[in-house]
Amino acid sequence: MPAPLLLVTSLPAAEEAGWRDALGAAMPDERILTISDGAEASEAEVAIVANPPLGALAGLSNLRWIQSLWAGVDRLVLDDTLPDVPVRRLVDPTLARAMAEAVAAAVLSLHRDFPRYAAQQRTGMWRQHPVRPASARCVTILGLGEMGRAAADLLRAIGFPVRAWSRSGTPHGTLPVACGPEGLARSLAAADILVNLLPLTPDTRGILAADTFRRLPPGAALVNFGRGAHLVEDDLLAALEAGALGHAILDVFPEEPLPPEHRLWAHPGITILPHVAAPTDMASAAAIVADAVAEFRRTGRAPAGLDRMRGY
Amino acid sequence: MPAPLLLVTSLPAAEEAGWRDALGAAMPDERILTISDGAEASEAEVAIVANPPLGALAGLSNLRWIQSLWAGVDRLVLDDTLPDVPVRRLVDPTLARAMAEAVAAAVLSLHRDFPRYAAQQRTGMWRQHPVRPASARCVTILGLGEMGRAAADLLRAIGFPVRAWSRSGTPHGTLPVACGPEGLARSLAAADILVNLLPLTPDTRGILAADTFRRLPPGAALVNFGRGAHLVEDDLLAALEAGALGHAILDVFPEEPLPPEHRLWAHPGITILPHVAAPTDMASAAAIVADAVAEFRRTGRAPAGLDRMRGY
Repeated sequence: MPAPLLLVTSLPAAEEAGWRDALGAAMPDERILTISDGAEASEAEVAIVANPPLGALAGLSNLRWIQSLWAGVDRLVLDDTLPDVPVRRLVDPTLARAMAEAVAAAVLSLHRDFPRYAAQQRTGMWRQHPVRPASARCVTILGLGEMGRAAADLLRAIGFPVRAWSRSGTPHGTLPVACGPEGLARSLAAADILVNLLPLTPDTRGILAADTFRRLPPGAALVNFGRGAHLVEDDLLAALEAGALGHAILDVFPEEPLPPEHRLWAHPGITILPHVAAPTDMASAAAIVADAVAEFRRTGRAPAGLDRMRGY
Repeated sequence: MPAPLLLVTSLPAAEEAGWRDALGAAMPDERILTISDGAEASEAEVAIVANPPLGALAGLSNLRWIQSLWAGVDRLVLDDTLPDVPVRRLVDPTLARAMAEAVAAAVLSLHRDFPRYAAQQRTGMWRQHPVRPASARCVTILGLGEMGRAAADLLRAIGFPVRAWSRSGTPHGTLPVACGPEGLARSLAAADILVNLLPLTPDTRGILAADTFRRLPPGAALVNFGRGAHLVEDDLLAALEAGALGHAILDVFPEEPLPPEHRLWAHPGITILPHVAAPTDMASAAAIVADAVAEFRRTGRAPAGLDRMRGY
């Protein structure tokens, strides 16, 4: 009998149970245990994790690889007690598609001044603002992983001129892709709307700050669908105050849920979304994990893993 | 010397002057007069109009055709004193593109629950709602003129299943197009989001009413970018109250500007836009009118006109 799979999360119990059910349905021949199942769980060769508590995987001497249920593994790889085995992010085309649709919704609503008209509606004000075609509104995407590429493709299909900036500068079809500090400066200078989809790494933490906002055209808009720690909140508020930024749509925050008394909620220049841009689809994610586990059972080797040092 | 062109509008003076300038720039060899220019104006063979006052064109015995600066001519053709000459609507691809982008912005923001999250933001509430892919959200477009076709094409490029209903049922590529009362019932039953882009005619006036809302799936959303008189306001409010409709985005109203004290402004289930879905682009419109006038000067015949009885 093969060793069990170990599910380790810090999710609410009902949500963890949902994952256990979804994974069980996708892999009916596997035994899926949690830490509370005791000694047998410690024999696991594969850990399936969602934001596991620090140290939770320490001492699992049979562990061969770790499968994250999330795309972001920035917290996971900072755990110094993590056994030295490959970590696989969840790469789910369903998620990339959901992210692309959320980006398109955010960009189009900024493009057509919906936040401004919503503010006018609250005071009963009828005032029209000039309409530009999408072809005259440049969008820059920071980060060109699977989500960035899906977002870029959809925005271009809608008619926006799009450029991207990424760590590697790897080309994507005919999309202009810059890299490095000078590439970033050029990409920002062209951005009527800036969309952040970067992974969180030591290099990208705090990248949405005064120095970045200063390089945007005056009145540009910001969409942060990456991570809360990409954004320096004080710098955002100063840029909105000064008119350097016209509006920001934020879906991610350093502390989630965003506390009810937080100053961002009431800011007229900020639209708050409760981390809904690309929520994990349990059934789709479980099927992807099941494929990886089946490959491991067949080959005896961990599926292609992650360069942990890059942090994503 | 050819007869002058007569510009007749009921627009504010500054806006009419803007039109005169734009038309003059597009047709530097033509004389463009207004009613206030006196007797010479009455010799005009071509009237260029934007919502002209009732009776303003009566008695122009030289008139050969009327060019509207707007796409909608529903008020114009109700003027019994209008000389019996062809009326040309403005058909501007720039406008169709702007309308398609506005429809995409409205549909995507409904698709991703932006109005609901905006309401939650006002009370500091962090609550996530399920995300569906666009491929699982059906959009029905009422009206399949140039604007409807452009909107349908863009929505399908984004990934929404789209169907349309039109007077004629004329096919458009692979888009399902229904017609007649039974086709309307089927189109409504499938519509998670209903988008109205119909022209206003005696047949379509009041089409957005209880009988229509009742046929939609419960909680469907409405986008009215057609005309204010398509919508029966009391029926809309009742449908929102009963939950038959989840939300409505309205860009057009029987009286514009919508009066500041109007009950629609403060309704939580309604997003108000100040008639900005597809605003006329003066330069683009003037170039299109100039082409038609040049054809008339060359051929001596009025450009292909309008079946006035259809009202659009």
